[in-house]
Amino acid sequence: MKLDTLAILGVGLVGGSVALAARQRGAARVIVGVEPDETRRERLLSLGLVDETAASADSERVGQADLVVCCVPVNHIAELVLHTAARAKPGQLLTDTGSTKAAIVHAVEESLPGHVHFVGGHPLAGSEKSGPDHASARLFADRVVVLTPTERSSPDAVARVSAFWQALGAQVRMMSPDEHDRAVAWTSHLPHLVSSALAGVLPETLTDLTASGFRDTTRLAAGDPGLWTAIFEQNREFLLQALGHFDDRIEQFRRALEMGDAEALITLLAGGRQRRQSLHGQGESHS
Amino acid sequence: MKLDTLAILGVGLVGGSVALAARQRGAARVIVGVEPDETRRERLLSLGLVDETAASADSERVGQADLVVCCVPVNHIAELVLHTAARAKPGQLLTDTGSTKAAIVHAVEESLPGHVHFVGGHPLAGSEKSGPDHASARLFADRVVVLTPTERSSPDAVARVSAFWQALGAQVRMMSPDEHDRAVAWTSHLPHLVSSALAGVLPETLTDLTASGFRDTTRLAAGDPGLWTAIFEQNREFLLQALGHFDDRIEQFRRALEMGDAEALITLLAGGRQRRQSLHGQGESHS
Repeated sequence: MKLDTLAILGVGLVGGSVALAARQRGAARVIVGVEPDETRRERLLSLGLVDETAASADSERVGQADLVVCCVPVNHIAELVLHTAARAKPGQLLTDTGSTKAAIVHAVEESLPGHVHFVGGHPLAGSEKSGPDHASARLFADRVVVLTPTERSSPDAVARVSAFWQALGAQVRMMSPDEHDRAVAWTSHLPHLVSSALAGVLPETLTDLTASGFRDTTRLAAGDPGLWTAIFEQNREFLLQALGHFDDRIEQFRRALEMGDAEALITLLAGGRQRRQSLHGQGESHS
Repeated sequence: MKLDTLAILGVGLVGGSVALAARQRGAARVIVGVEPDETRRERLLSLGLVDETAASADSERVGQADLVVCCVPVNHIAELVLHTAARAKPGQLLTDTGSTKAAIVHAVEESLPGHVHFVGGHPLAGSEKSGPDHASARLFADRVVVLTPTERSSPDAVARVSAFWQALGAQVRMMSPDEHDRAVAWTSHLPHLVSSALAGVLPETLTDLTASGFRDTTRLAAGDPGLWTAIFEQNREFLLQALGHFDDRIEQFRRALEMGDAEALITLLAGGRQRRQSLHGQGESHS
């Protein structure tokens, strides 16, 4: 599969990595990057991330693109996809990389014009870093990309978006938008919240007594607060459910500590260890 | 500073790393490793970690050592230090590497014979891995080692233990046992508990949807449950205090989510990010 024109709306860490991977794997002839800020557009060209830039999705180059990947913050995706779709050539394929899916997919499908196709997507890859300077052609290699088609999705459109991500080295998984949001509440959003809470309560006088354990456990806390507030808001219900289970576990630890119950502590710790060791790729962890 | 004989009681990850670092830095002429298990003693010799082995601290080689470093689990340290001290040559210096200090230092000082010296210690370095096969000569390089002398400690003994760790590449910090325990409750024990709770509640069906964020946040959860139960028990009070603050912060997140309060969420996340970014060496974090 080789596209003629690939347009990327929002060329930060994720959008920039899509551009680099697409170029390296020969997935598109021309890559157009859309960024409102002029300095940033120049940076994209000087970094060699894209072939052309445009200041907005209104650009004719975007309207003529075969595939549009929307990589902006989750609270702007649905609006921007619909805005782009309204100006798109017939048959254009649109997808996104947002960390939440249900709100976005429902909003897009409710108003999508009939001459284009949309399939929601989310690459399970990222970094606490942001911006095009941290983009990497390897970001999606052997990582899972979740696609969230619905009964309204065209099977051909789903197959083409899937082939695009596979061409970038990713493994594609299909889930419903709700299934996706429930899963990432556990695997990504709860860890982010917990990591932030842990970093946030550290007394300032103790920062120089932290070692690699504290640093790894709080790495996610360095993520952008605005982006994550939008993600939390869009996945509120599932995140609150996961947080409830986490709270219960913390409460069990607290009771075991208060009662000096060594057996309960060892059982709790052994349960966490067992689940941690069952993770795919846990051997990659850093010390 | 060069010792004649260094004895290490318990040659696992930490004890083995002390041995390797001492050898590489020329800090001791002879290194004696004490391990009750025969297979393990043979392994220490074949790995080249120590020059000699002994099956117990009763060995004359340990009694004649200039410095004894006790690297066994925290709940066995005080007893083993006192047992060793009772058989030690006059002037022997003993220290430990336990993750808690108040209980150990008080128990040792209460019964230490007058002809030897003890100074409590804790290198702020480690790994979720254990065992001598994972030992590293670089484990303490540029890491902080906390020493916890009291009014009973001989200044000369403190200076000699300090010089030993500096010879191994570490930076030495002096704190009281209580100050130390309060600090590591925040920087190490609370993160371990939180990491374990997070890993422990992950639904089994979602393990293959985790990415590097989940893995880093739960790396500590892979630690040995028995070792950590003993640490938690010895630092119960301070750990419960830190856990209380963490609980409050989690509760603030929960209320903000329930009320859809974006401003509160962004403030909480920004606070966590700011503290995370103030950490020394945060640039080393892995993605």
